[in-house]
Amino acid sequence: MDFYVMTLFPQMILQAASFSILDRAQKQGRISVHGVDIREYSHNKHRHVDDAPYGGGAGMVMQAPPVYEAYEAICRKVGARPRVAYMTPAGETFTQKKARELAREENLVLLCGHYEGIDQRVIDEIVTDEISIGDYVLTGGELPALVVIDAVARMIDGVLGNEESAGEESFSGMLLEYPQYTRPADFRGRKVPEILMGGNHEEVRLWRLERAMETTMEKRPDLLRPEGMSREERGIYERLREKFLEKSLASKGHL
Amino acid sequence: MDFYVMTLFPQMILQAASFSILDRAQKQGRISVHGVDIREYSHNKHRHVDDAPYGGGAGMVMQAPPVYEAYEAICRKVGARPRVAYMTPAGETFTQKKARELAREENLVLLCGHYEGIDQRVIDEIVTDEISIGDYVLTGGELPALVVIDAVARMIDGVLGNEESAGEESFSGMLLEYPQYTRPADFRGRKVPEILMGGNHEEVRLWRLERAMETTMEKRPDLLRPEGMSREERGIYERLREKFLEKSLASKGHL
Repeated sequence: MDFYVMTLFPQMILQAASFSILDRAQKQGRISVHGVDIREYSHNKHRHVDDAPYGGGAGMVMQAPPVYEAYEAICRKVGARPRVAYMTPAGETFTQKKARELAREENLVLLCGHYEGIDQRVIDEIVTDEISIGDYVLTGGELPALVVIDAVARMIDGVLGNEESAGEESFSGMLLEYPQYTRPADFRGRKVPEILMGGNHEEVRLWRLERAMETTMEKRPDLLRPEGMSREERGIYERLREKFLEKSLASKGHL
Repeated sequence: MDFYVMTLFPQMILQAASFSILDRAQKQGRISVHGVDIREYSHNKHRHVDDAPYGGGAGMVMQAPPVYEAYEAICRKVGARPRVAYMTPAGETFTQKKARELAREENLVLLCGHYEGIDQRVIDEIVTDEISIGDYVLTGGELPALVVIDAVARMIDGVLGNEESAGEESFSGMLLEYPQYTRPADFRGRKVPEILMGGNHEEVRLWRLERAMETTMEKRPDLLRPEGMSREERGIYERLREKFLEKSLASKGHL
């Protein structure tokens, strides 16, 4: 899969994508990440691509023509008109489900705003998806684009090695992770839970499932989908729920 | 404010923080961003900081001692025990409110996991905040840490210049942005809304407020807080709501 990031900071994208799994995936030819410098499509000798907003107000707005021409150049290169995801706080909230959907594309263009935004007319003209990575304000679309690339790339066949698995991780299975422990066995007087040292795989599996369910219930109950659970999961879920209810009643002085 | 990022990829942090507003804020001495390489605290001649999980399973787990010692080194350097935010999908969902809260700290440590996670015991020992930037799976905590640094830095006095304003932006005021337009006046046959060309500031202000309210109502109605609105905002809100209701009834064939 090929990612094209339209940005004022192509080096930031290329550098950040040159570490860890994104680096390996590029070297193995499973993905490519291109930084497309919007400034190269400036009509201005100072390479400016922004101007004051019509109607007044603080800040500068990115002009439509350079953004449009950068996109047309990408289209000519790939011989298609790929989807364009505009990174904006007003977009649809990005989720693992959206990552899975985007991973089916052959090419994906990510458009990064900066300044006070981008001229609405080029958004109307080329953008197919508006994506927000969360409810907070960032300087530009570059970090959001990198987040999307990372999450999407991990869904592509072969990007994760055998030692990494997409399936077991948070939000894919809708349970948060169970706690992990590794050597040393004693860390500042803190021990590893006995059951993990015992070598009984079935006990370990059940302990981890219960811890994952417990963490999720405590921290993100909204992620739990009792109707989609196996009978085993449902059993653990019901038992934990009772325990929680008792604890919450006790803390209110009812027990 | 000083940010210390504990990570296996300090260069990724430093490079990404050397663009745009974060770069300027560092040069002006308003913030500093430090990459703390956990590997430097390895007890292993190959500089490994991970080991197989107790209880078996895929992947590797980051060991407690190097993480702990990296934190202790930061504490010695700053002469305090700063808050430690662990970037994890199991954390509290990051929001603009949390960014504002963290911006009050003098020092903030961000702990980035990699592999299958970090030994739970060092999390129990040093972590004060667990933060998730959204419901998707990423390769490590580095991009989330950069997102947090960017959002928090913008809340610090003097980081945004006069031309940028934190107050008008999305999520601060709980309204999404109104559409922006800049030159040229005609882009591929698409015109700028007349009202923005007219020069009547009051009309422009009202048009923008209405567009912001409309966008928010369409895309993120959960952000609207009618009880916190001014009388003017409330008036626009009620009028738009009626329009929406009519449209929605009409589309169902009731009108």
